[in-house]
Amino acid sequence: MVPARDSDLPVLDLAGSAVDLTVALCDIESVSGNEAAIADAIEASLAIYPHLEVIRDGDAVVARTNLGRASRVVIAGHIDTVPVNANLPVRREGDELIGRGTVDMKAGVAVALVLAADLSEPPVDLTWIFYDNEEVSSDLNGLGRLARTRPELLAGDFAILGEPTSATVEGGCNGTARVEVRLSGIRAHSARSWVGHNAIHDAAEVLRILKDYEPEQLEVDGLVYREGLNAVAITGGVAGNVIPDQAVVTINYRFAPSRSGEQAIAHLRELFDGYELTVTDLAEGARPGLDEPLAQDFLAAVGGVAHPKYGWTDVARFSAHGVPAVNYGPGDPLRAHADDERVNIAEIIACEQGLRAWLGTH
Amino acid sequence: MVPARDSDLPVLDLAGSAVDLTVALCDIESVSGNEAAIADAIEASLAIYPHLEVIRDGDAVVARTNLGRASRVVIAGHIDTVPVNANLPVRREGDELIGRGTVDMKAGVAVALVLAADLSEPPVDLTWIFYDNEEVSSDLNGLGRLARTRPELLAGDFAILGEPTSATVEGGCNGTARVEVRLSGIRAHSARSWVGHNAIHDAAEVLRILKDYEPEQLEVDGLVYREGLNAVAITGGVAGNVIPDQAVVTINYRFAPSRSGEQAIAHLRELFDGYELTVTDLAEGARPGLDEPLAQDFLAAVGGVAHPKYGWTDVARFSAHGVPAVNYGPGDPLRAHADDERVNIAEIIACEQGLRAWLGTH
Repeated sequence: MVPARDSDLPVLDLAGSAVDLTVALCDIESVSGNEAAIADAIEASLAIYPHLEVIRDGDAVVARTNLGRASRVVIAGHIDTVPVNANLPVRREGDELIGRGTVDMKAGVAVALVLAADLSEPPVDLTWIFYDNEEVSSDLNGLGRLARTRPELLAGDFAILGEPTSATVEGGCNGTARVEVRLSGIRAHSARSWVGHNAIHDAAEVLRILKDYEPEQLEVDGLVYREGLNAVAITGGVAGNVIPDQAVVTINYRFAPSRSGEQAIAHLRELFDGYELTVTDLAEGARPGLDEPLAQDFLAAVGGVAHPKYGWTDVARFSAHGVPAVNYGPGDPLRAHADDERVNIAEIIACEQGLRAWLGTH
Repeated sequence: MVPARDSDLPVLDLAGSAVDLTVALCDIESVSGNEAAIADAIEASLAIYPHLEVIRDGDAVVARTNLGRASRVVIAGHIDTVPVNANLPVRREGDELIGRGTVDMKAGVAVALVLAADLSEPPVDLTWIFYDNEEVSSDLNGLGRLARTRPELLAGDFAILGEPTSATVEGGCNGTARVEVRLSGIRAHSARSWVGHNAIHDAAEVLRILKDYEPEQLEVDGLVYREGLNAVAITGGVAGNVIPDQAVVTINYRFAPSRSGEQAIAHLRELFDGYELTVTDLAEGARPGLDEPLAQDFLAAVGGVAHPKYGWTDVARFSAHGVPAVNYGPGDPLRAHADDERVNIAEIIACEQGLRAWLGTH
């Protein structure tokens, strides 16, 4: 069924090149919370392909084959971007596309859309997920919403998230925890400091622990995850003439996926034994899942080498759902969110070819 | 000359008791910047005494005798208060007056006003200064304004500031300096912390220096001044997932009056050698000046024992002007600015009697 098209709807040509499609997707501005237009365009462009069942949920679009294959692979990407900063429309310069969304992650979405349209007889059933609100608060995340409200749409034996990895495979991801260590003292006038107790001075030991800490490097399923433990904020002080009775050090712990969130917090409690510690944020990591046969096949098809993913990504949502997942997408992640965000065209082509090689030969 | 009285002007009875006058003064609300009404009332009430020359400058009122005595003593107090917090009008409970301004420092002002009116033939010439804006930014301070624009009004051989000292003599005051120590690092995503350099972690050493520092106790003109060195604020942090590239520790150094401001800063630069240090505030201390004969007489008349003043007070403005100065006033300074601010009535009477004993017998 071809849906009636709104005449204002941008037309996405899924039969063309992923490079051109990247440009078209970027030029539909879709800062988090404003994804309706791009979701409409994606939904409409997928709906004309009879091999796909297309499902709309808020501003997420899911398309899937139902061929009765023995396995199902989920390929997902978010369609929102961080705010535009005079970096649209996209321009091409040499072998790069420059502009908001090129790296994070409309090039990855373009690759997925072209393959979703083209692979009508894949060796595995495929679920393509294009979702909203990845760049904002975790509770708004479209993939998280689907996991809560329509978990059957995430079901699969293996998942690939098209986040930028410079077209290499980055397995799993580190977990992340944020805790606050609160120091309490006794307020006093600073002219009579001996009457009080300076809470900021007590932060010296907390910062020393952090400075002296040697982050571990842990091997998980053959990949080495590098951890990190850092103060990301510190506050304290009442007034220029007052001995402060409060200081708070906010700490971010990036932990290898071989630790559960609970274990990560236990590690912090041990490290800051005796301190008042409050957990303000905790997201589990994701094991790379590269021991799965499907993952092995995929890895072989796209070059054979996997690296660990240090940053937390939505692969952890698949992992929490029992679906091993990796990151694989065009673009240098260090360019994400930069005002001069840009993607190398060769990486778009490489990712398309890599996935095509795997899903054509499996 | 008796000036025409505005009918709405509160009438202050300077011939009554200093205790009743304290209540009357407190009940004329005069938060810093809003001293016009109380200055009007003070000016009008002093103007009826022919032994006084009364001078108005902004919301400061100066009254002085011109008897051609060999010496001149200046007695001063500020007429503003910190903000009222549902603690007016003043109420009397047992042997205390409770409410905003009772300690800091309308009881001291009341004692001065009663004596200014009564002592028409003192053994020394007297200058009484009642000034505005002591509780706010130093550049607004009424005594500082007089020192800049009408320095002749501050001239004298000895000065007494009626700030609360629990009716004891507190000589001179510590100086105070505020400096910022700025740590600089390299910003990075906290998932790849090894790419950056954490400026907050570098604050560990600054805080350790502060924590380990043992403040000195220095004897100056027979009084022992206790110093203090404290972080009064710390800030750092960009976002919950960013290695911070900046942290700032704000430090307050209270230094004995035997050190000049320059020496105090040199001491800090030595202590934080190698760090980026910025001086944001510096006020010299004041030597107690108790070796002056007038001061010795005063001290003998009021009990003979002097203590050092730890907090910075406007005695330093007299000291900078070449006039040795001490603090002497009713009320516990630890009650200043407290919502349950209160003054012991016996201390009001003691201060009045002490000054009367001295200025009557000299």
